[in-house]
Amino acid sequence: MDNKYLMYGGDYNPEQWLHMPQILETDIKRFKEAKINTVTIGIFSWSVLEPREGEYHFEWMEEIINKLYQNGISVILATPSGARPHWLADKYPEVLRVNELRQKYLFGIRHNHCMTSPIYRKKVRQIDTELVKRFGNHPAVKMWHISNEFSGECHCELCQDAFRMWLKKKYQTIGALNDSWCTTFWSHTYDSFEQVESPSPLGESCIMGLTLDWKRFVSWQTIDFMEEEIRTIRETGGMQPTTTNLMYHYGGIDYYRLAEKIDVASWDNYPAWHKGNEIETALDTAFWHDVIRGLKRKPFLLMESSPGATNWQPISKLKKPGMVAAASLQSIAHGADGAMYFQMRKSRGAEEKFHGAVLDHYDGNDTRTFRDVCETGKILEKLGETAGLYTTAKVAVIYDWENRWALEGSRGPRNEGLHYEESVEKSYRALRRLGLNVDVIDQKCFLQGYQMIAAPMQYLFHENFPGEIRRYIENGGIFVMTYWSGVVDENDRCFLGGTPYELMDVFGLRSEEIDGLYDWEENSICQTEEKMAGMKEEYVCKYLCQLVKPTTARTLMVYGKDFYAGSPVLLENNYGRGKAYYVGADAEQWFYNDFYRKLSKEAGIEGIWHDEIPEGVEITSRSDGKADYIFLQNFSPVPVQLCLPQGTVLIGNKEGKMGSLESIVIKVEKGGKEAM
Amino acid sequence: MDNKYLMYGGDYNPEQWLHMPQILETDIKRFKEAKINTVTIGIFSWSVLEPREGEYHFEWMEEIINKLYQNGISVILATPSGARPHWLADKYPEVLRVNELRQKYLFGIRHNHCMTSPIYRKKVRQIDTELVKRFGNHPAVKMWHISNEFSGECHCELCQDAFRMWLKKKYQTIGALNDSWCTTFWSHTYDSFEQVESPSPLGESCIMGLTLDWKRFVSWQTIDFMEEEIRTIRETGGMQPTTTNLMYHYGGIDYYRLAEKIDVASWDNYPAWHKGNEIETALDTAFWHDVIRGLKRKPFLLMESSPGATNWQPISKLKKPGMVAAASLQSIAHGADGAMYFQMRKSRGAEEKFHGAVLDHYDGNDTRTFRDVCETGKILEKLGETAGLYTTAKVAVIYDWENRWALEGSRGPRNEGLHYEESVEKSYRALRRLGLNVDVIDQKCFLQGYQMIAAPMQYLFHENFPGEIRRYIENGGIFVMTYWSGVVDENDRCFLGGTPYELMDVFGLRSEEIDGLYDWEENSICQTEEKMAGMKEEYVCKYLCQLVKPTTARTLMVYGKDFYAGSPVLLENNYGRGKAYYVGADAEQWFYNDFYRKLSKEAGIEGIWHDEIPEGVEITSRSDGKADYIFLQNFSPVPVQLCLPQGTVLIGNKEGKMGSLESIVIKVEKGGKEAM
Amino acid sequence: MDNKYLMYGGDYNPEQWLHMPQILETDIKRFKEAKINTVTIGIFSWSVLEPREGEYHFEWMEEIINKLYQNGISVILATPSGARPHWLADKYPEVLRVNELRQKYLFGIRHNHCMTSPIYRKKVRQIDTELVKRFGNHPAVKMWHISNEFSGECHCELCQDAFRMWLKKKYQTIGALNDSWCTTFWSHTYDSFEQVESPSPLGESCIMGLTLDWKRFVSWQTIDFMEEEIRTIRETGGMQPTTTNLMYHYGGIDYYRLAEKIDVASWDNYPAWHKGNEIETALDTAFWHDVIRGLKRKPFLLMESSPGATNWQPISKLKKPGMVAAASLQSIAHGADGAMYFQMRKSRGAEEKFHGAVLDHYDGNDTRTFRDVCETGKILEKLGETAGLYTTAKVAVIYDWENRWALEGSRGPRNEGLHYEESVEKSYRALRRLGLNVDVIDQKCFLQGYQMIAAPMQYLFHENFPGEIRRYIENGGIFVMTYWSGVVDENDRCFLGGTPYELMDVFGLRSEEIDGLYDWEENSICQTEEKMAGMKEEYVCKYLCQLVKPTTARTLMVYGKDFYAGSPVLLENNYGRGKAYYVGADAEQWFYNDFYRKLSKEAGIEGIWHDEIPEGVEITSRSDGKADYIFLQNFSPVPVQLCLPQGTVLIGNKEGKMGSLESIVIKVEKGGKEAM
Repeated sequence: MDNKYLMYGGDYNPEQWLHMPQILETDIKRFKEAKINTVTIGIFSWSVLEPREGEYHFEWMEEIINKLYQNGISVILATPSGARPHWLADKYPEVLRVNELRQKYLFGIRHNHCMTSPIYRKKVRQIDTELVKRFGNHPAVKMWHISNEFSGECHCELCQDAFRMWLKKKYQTIGALNDSWCTTFWSHTYDSFEQVESPSPLGESCIMGLTLDWKRFVSWQTIDFMEEEIRTIRETGGMQPTTTNLMYHYGGIDYYRLAEKIDVASWDNYPAWHKGNEIETALDTAFWHDVIRGLKRKPFLLMESSPGATNWQPISKLKKPGMVAAASLQSIAHGADGAMYFQMRKSRGAEEKFHGAVLDHYDGNDTRTFRDVCETGKILEKLGETAGLYTTAKVAVIYDWENRWALEGSRGPRNEGLHYEESVEKSYRALRRLGLNVDVIDQKCFLQGYQMIAAPMQYLFHENFPGEIRRYIENGGIFVMTYWSGVVDENDRCFLGGTPYELMDVFGLRSEEIDGLYDWEENSICQTEEKMAGMKEEYVCKYLCQLVKPTTARTLMVYGKDFYAGSPVLLENNYGRGKAYYVGADAEQWFYNDFYRKLSKEAGIEGIWHDEIPEGVEITSRSDGKADYIFLQNFSPVPVQLCLPQGTVLIGNKEGKMGSLESIVIKVEKGGKEAM
Repeated sequence: MDNKYLMYGGDYNPEQWLHMPQILETDIKRFKEAKINTVTIGIFSWSVLEPREGEYHFEWMEEIINKLYQNGISVILATPSGARPHWLADKYPEVLRVNELRQKYLFGIRHNHCMTSPIYRKKVRQIDTELVKRFGNHPAVKMWHISNEFSGECHCELCQDAFRMWLKKKYQTIGALNDSWCTTFWSHTYDSFEQVESPSPLGESCIMGLTLDWKRFVSWQTIDFMEEEIRTIRETGGMQPTTTNLMYHYGGIDYYRLAEKIDVASWDNYPAWHKGNEIETALDTAFWHDVIRGLKRKPFLLMESSPGATNWQPISKLKKPGMVAAASLQSIAHGADGAMYFQMRKSRGAEEKFHGAVLDHYDGNDTRTFRDVCETGKILEKLGETAGLYTTAKVAVIYDWENRWALEGSRGPRNEGLHYEESVEKSYRALRRLGLNVDVIDQKCFLQGYQMIAAPMQYLFHENFPGEIRRYIENGGIFVMTYWSGVVDENDRCFLGGTPYELMDVFGLRSEEIDGLYDWEENSICQTEEKMAGMKEEYVCKYLCQLVKPTTARTLMVYGKDFYAGSPVLLENNYGRGKAYYVGADAEQWFYNDFYRKLSKEAGIEGIWHDEIPEGVEITSRSDGKADYIFLQNFSPVPVQLCLPQGTVLIGNKEGKMGSLESIVIKVEKGGKEAM
Repeated sequence: MDNKYLMYGGDYNPEQWLHMPQILETDIKRFKEAKINTVTIGIFSWSVLEPREGEYHFEWMEEIINKLYQNGISVILATPSGARPHWLADKYPEVLRVNELRQKYLFGIRHNHCMTSPIYRKKVRQIDTELVKRFGNHPAVKMWHISNEFSGECHCELCQDAFRMWLKKKYQTIGALNDSWCTTFWSHTYDSFEQVESPSPLGESCIMGLTLDWKRFVSWQTIDFMEEEIRTIRETGGMQPTTTNLMYHYGGIDYYRLAEKIDVASWDNYPAWHKGNEIETALDTAFWHDVIRGLKRKPFLLMESSPGATNWQPISKLKKPGMVAAASLQSIAHGADGAMYFQMRKSRGAEEKFHGAVLDHYDGNDTRTFRDVCETGKILEKLGETAGLYTTAKVAVIYDWENRWALEGSRGPRNEGLHYEESVEKSYRALRRLGLNVDVIDQKCFLQGYQMIAAPMQYLFHENFPGEIRRYIENGGIFVMTYWSGVVDENDRCFLGGTPYELMDVFGLRSEEIDGLYDWEENSICQTEEKMAGMKEEYVCKYLCQLVKPTTARTLMVYGKDFYAGSPVLLENNYGRGKAYYVGADAEQWFYNDFYRKLSKEAGIEGIWHDEIPEGVEITSRSDGKADYIFLQNFSPVPVQLCLPQGTVLIGNKEGKMGSLESIVIKVEKGGKEAM
């Protein structure tokens, strides 16, 4: 994306209105009113593009693309593989999924095609080829949108075979598989790869190695499917960048691996604004923006968001005044090069007719939503120069898909919630509240270069990971690891001889036991006689309490209750030129806020903002090396007053006043900022 | 029903006791003690009537019917199609249902036969024919009871084909179907009718047009099955009136359409008395009595009720003293010509052996239940002259099955509860508390003639409905419509160009947005500066808040909170000679109580009762034109004192005193009533 | 078990570590450190013992057994039928279960083999034969452990046929079956045994007779499977005693019938210590120890317990200091001849790698758990002389599997919980708190000889049971029966003519009605004018209130509320030389505590302890006729001080002081005890 403007628009489904051309006329008119410059088309068009096998109808799409282009609107063109036509499922039933109970799906819904099916892949290649041939060189087409919200899994015989092939390639011999999965347990030894079946409530659910490998396979197979689509585009001459729209919280695909295959990461974001505290929602959204940016550590796209209420959330809540602009701008603040909507116009019938859209059934331009969209369009237009700028972070938090999978399948120490993601977010939020840009990375990412890294609950260690951590700390890094880390290898086999595996000397301790607490129980993290500066007297901790035996580590804080009262929970160990910290329990947010504040201060890790940051204000920055663009957003319910640095206020109040949901964007020349 | 007595009795299963003739002797004796005059037999007798295919045994039934007749007890004779014999399911497996997951049921339970199966229909025709041949002219037989509690659905191939035929007949071309169902959405276009499958969690669940038509088909097919039974009876010479027993809250069949095919509406009523506030339970029961009466707008039957605890409710609660009589009488008060029980005698084993019955396993007549039944028998005997009398209502509430179906399948604006039925009941209850008889009608019923009509949450508009409303108001009617009305057509396609569809001028407003509230949220409906008389300062509203833009409508009350505070929520518009009212939010009951009181007063709509009605007292009336029979029932926990009009007290205290659960029935000559 | 030592050890899975012989070396060393004298092996070894059909590998097991023997450790040898190898399921798919939805299971988990399958039985016979041939005479092998945690059911065609055969044998004619199951209800009459299908959500669920017989069949078939294994062992020359490990709360097998076929009862016990009040958990555990002891009324074995946290409970809670010893000792106190653990060493991977074990992945002997295990080993060693001693009880509580089954399938009077087991435990706890040893027996056990028997909620009466009760009371026994007793026969058919069946004269009353209360409702049990000594003024009762009509019975206490306020709830009737008591409602625990205290006192039923027993202290005894071994355990959170009788303190503080979770065991010569 080298264009110096921010993308603005969304998913557009003109195929639903071909019989009402006046609607399509209105669309273009309204898009221009709202300063919309980009729309995504074709996502669900397959049945219109190829109504009968091999019979292609692109003329309507061409007409629309041309008209858009003539009106200065670019196109992100989707491959239609997210939902196939009825005839395809009827003629080639193998394209329909089979669920884990081994029930074949009927045609229906949308994403229920088998990612393995050779026929489905062939049919997708054919339609993609035709699409690229027709539009690959069209000047309106700026990007390829591969399929839609990849997700789900299939247990058909084709997938079972593909899974077995994948295992054979990975393990070579069945003995190696048995060893890795510890199948002697409960007499589960496999005699051959042919015996392996994907996990099922009707079959195997107790071999964690199988479960983990199945998740890896599904992730790999989905990415492989996507790669095949990308290859088709490239081979047919489509040279625009590729993306696919990722999803909040989605666990079925290792997004770090997927992101290696696309040019631009993008995602669909539907926070439950106006449900709880907006500040919390904003921080959670910020985390996911940073997860997505972290996938490629470069500008990404907000591909979908709702300009009004969604219709699939439990409650369709209207967006209050200011919310549409604030939410769109937040994505830019975290490094997006565009903020897009689902959907441009509400469909007339079926599942999503009540989903928020730029244009609704009424069709007038005097709706509150349309005014909000126009307003946001103006804001994004003013921020064109931020497009393409990078976000630089001095600190990182590790969030790892394989770790998540292993924890999800875990039996013990808490089957009612291990809270992995919450624990990651706690570290993230504490750092964000300090005004630090934060990278979210996984254990395969490059650690060196950050000033501080948090690795919460890193249960699963890949072979190289402990060595990387050791090297990072040795070279002067600050590394914070929490309870239940370094317990199993990549096959979910326990490390023998003590944990955290290969890092007991680095952290100066050995994990001994871990106590699960009922939801209603709590313990506390307390000061010792030798008070630790910057920390309160006591913090609540819940859910899990790790008991450790220090060797060289210094005990900073101790448990306050239970039979392990007085035993260490927060420890520090010097290693090489760096420091290793260990947090033994699931502490409350305040603990992390205070702890990271203290560590940052001691290590001189400074954010873009030197003043105290009022509660509820998000501060981020993007930079081109010469100037910093500082984004200030007030997600608290009360107005705030900030003292702005010298610079150019691009958006918002020049005196630093921000009402609730208001924002300020200020450009600060590198020299100028220092003077603040 | 031209007989001048009220039917009293219930479901009787002598086939369970053929081997114990002394039991059958006792039965008759007890029936007479209790003044029982009617029993329903044959509902589950098929396996005894036809133990082997084509081998009929009616002699036992004849003997019983004769004996009943000799003892002055009439018979409602049921066709046995509600549960078929084992041999039938074994020999013709097609008669067993297939569920939505496409799993075939085994033999079991009761109502699990396919309504489409030609074999099942044939076998039912045969047994019905034999039954009518044998008993069609028996003087004891007063009515035909068609099958039992029609319900459920089947997804077998026969049903799929029948559904496709039904669709073909409705839409003629697949293009018309695609257009009506908006199948371009998610590339779901059908190429032919053969591709259509009934909705399924394993297949389609996102095409609301399909879901809606499937519900219509199931309803239609069930009614068609029933019609075939009725036709068989008529063709074989059975000329007594027909009925079938309907169920509280049952949504699977459009009862308005079903009722067109039977002579007498009847239903099974099992309120959860003694669970919450009896007043609320009584009002809810009153609503359903009036729904059933509304189906044919003439006297109906209470076909089943429990003289003791049921055994299938979560808790088998004993009926407290007075409850059996009060509940039976309530049905008469709302227009029933009889109050019947399930069951006459507890079966010895299986599912319902602990279900309340007139006679229990102990078999003595010194049980509390039997005494209650005798007491109630005496009361009904005294009210014989009310049999056949009509209930006249000046006001109506619209309760519409198709609307219910569309709302049930809706995605948005509140997937955690749209509360359609509660909203209908709120208007109903407010009107009932004014002592008004209320008709419950659907949108296809004739509107003209009522003084006021409430149409809560009328989301789906049939083609003619807005025109009927317009005409009704034009001619001087008062019409109250609430939020989320006039949104979609009969295929659940959104109306374009603004809503409420075709009525924006009639109501003088346009609906703009609708806000979903979480369960814990609320807003308020407030007075404006210009106070509205008869209304409180503020009412709570919840769940849904519609934002509207008035054109000619006057704003009567406004929202109290959120960003739309001050915007109109209650509006009034003059149209023609009538008035159109719009209620924008899901208001609390008090709002409706006050609002309808005010409207009734202003319009001079008077109930049968001119005094203030104490809390918890239900007042209804039936009339033969010359006299009104006024029913007073006290469902409050405290005694009340009413000032009775001049007339003959048929039941209860002549001074107007009623303890909790006590009743008074008074006959007031038309002249006399005016004098009150 | 004639050896004068208590068994100590647990489940050992060396087959998981054959490739790491140093681990196996360490194991033996650690076992000896911890005074472990017995391990159970072979439970899940089939795939290692017979990796390919007919190819046996016993050499590794022999080596391990030899080594254990050389180190003084005995072996309980398991037949491997609890989990079969993959090749067996692949080659003979019939061995895999079919669920009630008629879905065939895939290979997986563990206990999912069909108990009927002739092939599975044959394969089990073959491996058992080989195992016994090899190890039947090995001096280390002290006991046979048949399979593992028998449970579950299968609905395959083989099982359907076996079920039909079983029914045919029981009923002889289909007419007799129809009569017993009351199939005339809902036209369910069976024409032949071939029509019978096991209960299913897709088929029959309303014929209680079918449901009950299916449960009986599954129980019988499982026991038959076990018997076949035992027969194989005996026929091959294995003469050691047999056992199988039973489970807490398991309802699928009638354990009283199973116990007739084994030599020693044993069970697996995983209480949720540290979840709620330990006193309650201890009492509940005590009940189940006594259930298991009651099965054979002789010493049993604690076969599994966790020396640390389990991994399958919702929360993996660490065992606090003292808990391991207290829990192990509690089993001995209640009559066990050994306390064993699952598991000796944590497996490296799969389902149970985090389940508590004597040895964990770290492998050091400096873990808290290992120290606890060593400590407990020392205690058990000191109590060797208690092995083999019996527990004598003067009172019994009836807990009956068939009654449980009938109540589980019941429809009414409370479908949200009849609380049968809680009601049994209430009587049990009250008696235990008096320091009485209690036998738990079923209705087929011999009643005579006890001084008092409690029969809570004995809904189902076998033919002989009322006669036995009558005889027991006639002969001077005290019998306490509660509400909802004597209602149905063994086919769940209601008794006609009044209940409690055949005992109305014995109890001097007839049950009239039973009222279900919502969870939030309660009634009370109150004194009458004529105060009953030793009882409080009022007790709360909930859930169910039976209304009875006394004939000769004296009313002791009455209901306090509802329309039946003042009617009798606690009644006494003299019959023969004994007394019959009837408790009409589900009373709170305090009621039972006071009531049984009063009854015991009046009847002179004395426990082993003559003083007042402090709250939370458990007192039990075992005896060899010459001396009593009294076990005192403090499960309360506070220390207690007891006045010890003259005797030898084997364990614990000689002054009678016990901190929380501490125990004292004292040997009192028969003469000495009297002097206390």
